[in-house]
Amino acid sequence: MVPALLSVGADRRASGADVVAAFHRGLVVGRLLGAAVGVRSHYEAGWHTTSTLGTVAAAAAVGSVMGLDEPRMRAALGIAGSLAQGSRQNFGTMTKPLHAGAAAHNAVLAASLAEEGFTADDQLLEGPLGFIALHRGESSAPPVTDADVATAFLNVKLYPCCYYTHAAADAVAELREDLVADGIDPTSIASLHVTVQPGGLAPLIHPRPVDGTQAKFSMEYVAAAMLADGAVTLASFEPDSVARPALQDLLATVTKAEAEVPPVGPAEWTAGYAVVVATLADGRTFSRRVDRPRGHATRPVDDATLRTKFDDCLTAAGLPGGSTPGDASSAPSALFDALVTIADQRSVSEVAQRITTVLAGRADQEAAQ
Amino acid sequence: MVPALLSVGADRRASGADVVAAFHRGLVVGRLLGAAVGVRSHYEAGWHTTSTLGTVAAAAAVGSVMGLDEPRMRAALGIAGSLAQGSRQNFGTMTKPLHAGAAAHNAVLAASLAEEGFTADDQLLEGPLGFIALHRGESSAPPVTDADVATAFLNVKLYPCCYYTHAAADAVAELREDLVADGIDPTSIASLHVTVQPGGLAPLIHPRPVDGTQAKFSMEYVAAAMLADGAVTLASFEPDSVARPALQDLLATVTKAEAEVPPVGPAEWTAGYAVVVATLADGRTFSRRVDRPRGHATRPVDDATLRTKFDDCLTAAGLPGGSTPGDASSAPSALFDALVTIADQRSVSEVAQRITTVLAGRADQEAAQ
Repeated sequence: MVPALLSVGADRRASGADVVAAFHRGLVVGRLLGAAVGVRSHYEAGWHTTSTLGTVAAAAAVGSVMGLDEPRMRAALGIAGSLAQGSRQNFGTMTKPLHAGAAAHNAVLAASLAEEGFTADDQLLEGPLGFIALHRGESSAPPVTDADVATAFLNVKLYPCCYYTHAAADAVAELREDLVADGIDPTSIASLHVTVQPGGLAPLIHPRPVDGTQAKFSMEYVAAAMLADGAVTLASFEPDSVARPALQDLLATVTKAEAEVPPVGPAEWTAGYAVVVATLADGRTFSRRVDRPRGHATRPVDDATLRTKFDDCLTAAGLPGGSTPGDASSAPSALFDALVTIADQRSVSEVAQRITTVLAGRADQEAAQ
Repeated sequence: MVPALLSVGADRRASGADVVAAFHRGLVVGRLLGAAVGVRSHYEAGWHTTSTLGTVAAAAAVGSVMGLDEPRMRAALGIAGSLAQGSRQNFGTMTKPLHAGAAAHNAVLAASLAEEGFTADDQLLEGPLGFIALHRGESSAPPVTDADVATAFLNVKLYPCCYYTHAAADAVAELREDLVADGIDPTSIASLHVTVQPGGLAPLIHPRPVDGTQAKFSMEYVAAAMLADGAVTLASFEPDSVARPALQDLLATVTKAEAEVPPVGPAEWTAGYAVVVATLADGRTFSRRVDRPRGHATRPVDDATLRTKFDDCLTAAGLPGGSTPGDASSAPSALFDALVTIADQRSVSEVAQRITTVLAGRADQEAAQ
């Protein structure tokens, strides 16, 4: 949704506030649509929600920035719903991130065509042969009410891998600190067992990843990498990182399970949980539980943490400036500041220009070589 | 499949024989996939097979022209299967033909990415979260065997509207000749009743079309247009044609039904049938039955008939030359001859060049205005 909004917002000379409002509208559409199809069973059937619901949600957001009237907005949603796609069987391959790109592409295409008067069925989402009918799972979840929609919120992902690994990654990070505090080498443990809520392992289909795209959908790999490295960054998913023999040995000691009742802590949980239990060679055990990962809407992180992620992205892209977060006058710092204050930016076009400036750093670097 | 094959075939300097072989391979893949998902229930659920099965079939065809090896062909099918989409709720809108364009676009994208080493799950079609699982209907149709596949065949559409109207259109054309032979004005009939095989009305969701895109999915409109005009061409679906008050009155006298046993002729039928019964004001009835439309693989048409359709397309596109089929030296005639002998053409690139030449006729015309 963000790349589509930034590009169209820049093109239409929208303000940051316009784009934030459009983003929120897209979120609401996505949530309503998720409730209509029964998002959990839709997802469990194999649909990749990022590109099924996401295409329609992004079309709503883009259409909002374009200022489409109601008939044209209906057409935009109708075109987008007919272009939405994506199977989770492709998780762990390059096609998985292609889904997100295709969703953005199709959302902009749908809204742009609708703006020009291109037609779609005005019941495409709710009609008997339409999106919801085709994508509806067996769920009997109650419909989303307007009251629910008003609470639409956003979770920030701090790790560049499947969100279903994040609570466990945080729990392993805490466990690792406990081990280090006791003078124990975290990689010396005999085994690690991860327990999550029912359904929480569904996307994690690669227990023995052979490359970075598979490792992003591997609970075993993410837990082992956090245990060994104390961090999970884009570098963790580089081929050399995944191939490390010591790490492959370590991840083979990781086991995982789903359970309705968490094995540690209170029996209650809401959206999900992760419990990690490490067993040492001498039989001692250490455990940690995290219900909501850092970055969850209820656990917001500070700008410094976001900046660390931002710099990790720049570094992975081979861009300069990522390593000097203290230099407020640098192009990356100016871009970061503009992004975290996007709602106050007068012109999204200027923000897009800052992105171009940062990317030009790579071009300069390449030209200098 | 054809536009994708022509463009990639031209780009790769393929021969006509290469492209025909690739086309056949795509047909076979489409048939196998149709059998795997249970194509009838897949279609009845609301999926538009042209863009669901068609995207994967076209990727197979394009990948064949590219000469992809087995792993890359698997990747091409895996990417294409994750981009395939399209809801029949959009029949009768501009988004319906967009499905075909998106299928061609995504097929070329998938094969091109796969050629460059882009990855997809090698079980994307048959895996538990994959294409077949997501698109499978309730059908218990027997699987296609290799023997069936060898008989893959092609039906040519002679009318620019939904194929489910074609047998009825042919039956009305015959009925019209009967009426004219008896000195009866075809538009003077009191009513016309159309009966087709079970499921044969599923796509025809617009009994009272208000524009050309809806009229293409209207049994009432197609039958009335054939009755009134003696032909169904692209001009039949122009706004002015659809809006004719006399035609709107005539189509209101058309009724339709599905029946397991045809009301006229033998009880047996295979793929489908259409029976049309006209009742005159004086109570007399005329009827005709057509089981397979002209152009069906079992009822091939001659080149002159294909040329009529070809010229209709040129005329509708505002291109010159369409009205002089006798002039063998004209660019349209040269293109037509190249297309009907495509299997013998040394270079698809030259055929594509002929298309460019014909299209340039419009540019010349526009420049002259």
